Amino acid sequence: MKGYAPGEQLNDPEIIKLNTNENPYPPSPRVFEAIQATLTSNKLRKYPEPLGDTFRRAAGKVLGVDPECILIGNGSDDILTILTRAFVPESGLIASPTPSYILYKSLAEIQGARFQAVPFTETWGIRLPWPTGANLIFVPNPNSPTGTLVSPADLTNWSAIVDPAPLVLDEAYADFADWNGLEMLEHRPNLIITRTLSKSYSLAGIRFGFAVASPEIIRELSKVKDSYNCDVLSLAAATAAIEDQEYFAGVRAKIIATRERMRPALAELGFDVTPSHANFLWCRRTDRPVKPIYEELKRRKILVRYMNYDGYDGLRISVGSDAEIDKLLAELKTL
Amino acid sequence: MKGYAPGEQLNDPEIIKLNTNENPYPPSPRVFEAIQATLTSNKLRKYPEPLGDTFRRAAGKVLGVDPECILIGNGSDDILTILTRAFVPESGLIASPTPSYILYKSLAEIQGARFQAVPFTETWGIRLPWPTGANLIFVPNPNSPTGTLVSPADLTNWSAIVDPAPLVLDEAYADFADWNGLEMLEHRPNLIITRTLSKSYSLAGIRFGFAVASPEIIRELSKVKDSYNCDVLSLAAATAAIEDQEYFAGVRAKIIATRERMRPALAELGFDVTPSHANFLWCRRTDRPVKPIYEELKRRKILVRYMNYDGYDGLRISVGSDAEIDKLLAELKTL
Repeated sequence: MKGYAPGEQLNDPEIIKLNTNENPYPPSPRVFEAIQATLTSNKLRKYPEPLGDTFRRAAGKVLGVDPECILIGNGSDDILTILTRAFVPESGLIASPTPSYILYKSLAEIQGARFQAVPFTETWGIRLPWPTGANLIFVPNPNSPTGTLVSPADLTNWSAIVDPAPLVLDEAYADFADWNGLEMLEHRPNLIITRTLSKSYSLAGIRFGFAVASPEIIRELSKVKDSYNCDVLSLAAATAAIEDQEYFAGVRAKIIATRERMRPALAELGFDVTPSHANFLWCRRTDRPVKPIYEELKRRKILVRYMNYDGYDGLRISVGSDAEIDKLLAELKTL
Repeated sequence: MKGYAPGEQLNDPEIIKLNTNENPYPPSPRVFEAIQATLTSNKLRKYPEPLGDTFRRAAGKVLGVDPECILIGNGSDDILTILTRAFVPESGLIASPTPSYILYKSLAEIQGARFQAVPFTETWGIRLPWPTGANLIFVPNPNSPTGTLVSPADLTNWSAIVDPAPLVLDEAYADFADWNGLEMLEHRPNLIITRTLSKSYSLAGIRFGFAVASPEIIRELSKVKDSYNCDVLSLAAATAAIEDQEYFAGVRAKIIATRERMRPALAELGFDVTPSHANFLWCRRTDRPVKPIYEELKRRKILVRYMNYDGYDGLRISVGSDAEIDKLLAELKTL
């Protein structure tokens, strides 16, 4: 198999990195305090909490769910891997709308399973009929690369149609949207929601994600995860980050404000920009190919993500700081 | 399935913890410096190096292997999981000597594969005939819970017999032994060696392990691992730890000295103690059951690991600090 190719991680500190939806702002100061406290308490030499109970209690409080409903992961990629291993047999079927997160197909390949991609409708809704017999369904909501959100009503109707197939709402970007699927959990037993602290909590570097589902599902998934899949520093950082909701709300507001400013500015430069519920914008053009724009921006030390789904291509541009976006817009103008 | 049960992780700071082979000494001071440098360089918000090239270069230098021969893992459990997913199809076969690391059986169960355990010989060598057609063979060397080492000559002969089956030498404890399998790598193409920084480098809390194998194998395994399976702080800590070989040698020498003092002392108390090449001792008794000893020690706030392999049972006692071991021996005496 070919293997999943993550976004370019260049070491050049001068580069403006708008290609992997990292947060331009640092994490909460409480994250640093929590890491320092862990370092001074002689904890590095000892194994971490296997289930991350301290984090689960903190996250449960913030989300209004029972801590038993939470599974910790080494990034939400770890959660997606655990879900695949738990639910999908060899030759089984994973289904997902397209264009979306290309990792789902790689997960199917690694598992020796089949993968079926169902194109979104023209208004970025779920297209019917949906394949029957899927062992696992991944729906990123908001979606990447488009930043679109399937509406609550559509999602609820459709999730009943595919019931009881295990349905994963990959909510990596949900913190930047007005709606998320948590409220659906009590009505839909085989629903699993995945989250990450990489984007909205500025913690891509520490690798921390989690799943929310029924206690029965979480208990079984726990048997599939590595015993100590999250380390002491990540656990401390993640717990401190999610507890600091005030800081979180401030960062979220800044990113949404920049995003809303970026969209008309990019449209004015000739891009067809999809309204976004995430921390990035999906930018296409009808008048010229976008790949040369990606390449020229890279030469000018601005990295965006060029994505191509069998000819349907575009630039996925992360919401950076205001200064970074000003620079991007200025370069695009000369271009 | 039942799921793997990791060793008890109690939160009581007063407890003397000799049950999961953690290192009683802190990691190198350079580990703390490296973590501080990472914290101040605004790296938490960015994704880490996907392949951990900085660590690979450092480890390659220390081990005398090409960095391309190294795969980074979120603990060596992550590496064992990656190996299972890469090599073992559903209904495939994993084979391992017994008694050994009970996780191997859980890995087979998660993968939907069969597991065959082959008893060690009475002198802790590999017993023949070995099952044919194994998709993956795990041999912990030194072994847990016994601390025994299969001799280089035996291992070389036997590995040729099972060639070309992928053979994993799980060397979690190799740093405490006089020999390891690195020299076998160039003669045995499908050999994979796994290591961890949890034990000899005092970093169980940060979850870091790695595999050493041919560049061809490592390249394929990289497609199976999660893209960002190690975080920025763990990578910085692991790199600093492995670079500080002087500190490492000092800790190693202290642990071996304590281990060699523990063995006759435990034997004098009536235990049948297997000579150990690891940072723990396997202690059995013929005159009375050992489980009550484990329980009474726990009441006295000393935690050792009671292990039972279908009636073959014993206590696996980690090598702690000298003070911890003195306390253990004193309690055992009154017991």
